[in-house]
Amino acid sequence: MSPAELFGDGVFETVHLRPDGPWLLDQHLARLARSAALLDLPLSLPTVSARVAALPSVTVASALRIIQTRESLHVAVSAIPATVLDERRTGIRVVSGAVGLRPPWSLAEAKTLSYGPNFAARRWARAQGGDDLLWVTIAGYALEGPTSSLVWLAGDELHSVPPAEAAILAGTTAAELLARAPRVGLRSSYRMVTLDELTGADAIWFASALRGLAEVTALDGVPRARSPWTARLLDLLGY
Amino acid sequence: MSPAELFGDGVFETVHLRPDGPWLLDQHLARLARSAALLDLPLSLPTVSARVAALPSVTVASALRIIQTRESLHVAVSAIPATVLDERRTGIRVVSGAVGLRPPWSLAEAKTLSYGPNFAARRWARAQGGDDLLWVTIAGYALEGPTSSLVWLAGDELHSVPPAEAAILAGTTAAELLARAPRVGLRSSYRMVTLDELTGADAIWFASALRGLAEVTALDGVPRARSPWTARLLDLLGY
Repeated sequence: MSPAELFGDGVFETVHLRPDGPWLLDQHLARLARSAALLDLPLSLPTVSARVAALPSVTVASALRIIQTRESLHVAVSAIPATVLDERRTGIRVVSGAVGLRPPWSLAEAKTLSYGPNFAARRWARAQGGDDLLWVTIAGYALEGPTSSLVWLAGDELHSVPPAEAAILAGTTAAELLARAPRVGLRSSYRMVTLDELTGADAIWFASALRGLAEVTALDGVPRARSPWTARLLDLLGY
Repeated sequence: MSPAELFGDGVFETVHLRPDGPWLLDQHLARLARSAALLDLPLSLPTVSARVAALPSVTVASALRIIQTRESLHVAVSAIPATVLDERRTGIRVVSGAVGLRPPWSLAEAKTLSYGPNFAARRWARAQGGDDLLWVTIAGYALEGPTSSLVWLAGDELHSVPPAEAAILAGTTAAELLARAPRVGLRSSYRMVTLDELTGADAIWFASALRGLAEVTALDGVPRARSPWTARLLDLLGY
């Protein structure tokens, strides 16, 4: 297992492994295949079946987990937690909560390992002929990329999206860039921007620790002139 | 590393590791701590700092990833992909896409490893005095739990939520239960249900491979009478 496997970019099934074998295995494998297809993930069902068939039988019902990441297949058997067994007998107290862009348990401002949707968003952008995606709210405000912050130049002012107001991750590279802007004669501030307004910016970049700054050379298929500021700002950040 | 670490339930930082050291390390560690707090995740910053300080220096700028799962800390250095380096020079073509409950790249119908938000939703429900959460749409329709399907009994008819219509994961255990319902004299069908309507059901369960069925004994703090069907249906499914 490698650290690259820790980013939630994979699919899984939990099967009730009974003394007489894995229950509803065909249905679970069918769903695993559907999930893998949605993630453009390699999956060999014959290999999975062989691995499952090779498991020793259990005397007590157990949990069988079939996990396919982008790198490898894991088939693991473990005990069913006592709390789960209890729930069959005692039941559970349930609380309802509204799904939405920002539920009370939102992790939008955390940099979590659950990056499957981020990778899916970028794959979708690539299928549209782009290199990366820009998330826009239903109301038309540009937010960020799946692994980058949005930065843009309008006149002599460098902007990025305010993380708390937009409920997005605070960008470390973008924050440093805005802090250093005065050294090259630019002002800087955080503000919300609509996609329409962004289109009129003098230059747009995606900022992240490894990219530093990647200039947006086309937005929704419309080419953009290169900016002389790209090299200056990369230099300002030591890239 | 254990399979339990593969479920996206953790936080990370990517740092630009330069020949003169990790760039903006303090800012990255501060964000790591904020992310960990949002996930109720244990994190020892002194341990992280010591691990980073012990890394050999690099001659070429590299990628430093600090990954804290619920089980362990990973600190890994790798080369920056050539494609990322290219992006600084050539720029990127960006496509915009609306964030929403079901964007075109939605993985809502896939069983992915990106379970961080699911675990967060359950932690929130527990903080409210429940055992589990029931996701409800903004329009008031009950959908599913973070790791379970919703099943309910109304008269002699057993129901579950239609996965495709609701854009949720198709439940394997729930599907089997509905298929077997006639054997115990019940009819069955998939249909959408509002939270209000669900409250009036004769019995409600959360279905999953390991739980089998867990009866909902309280919904939003309102206790519910136990159903004689719980034992019958568990028996029907061989639990």
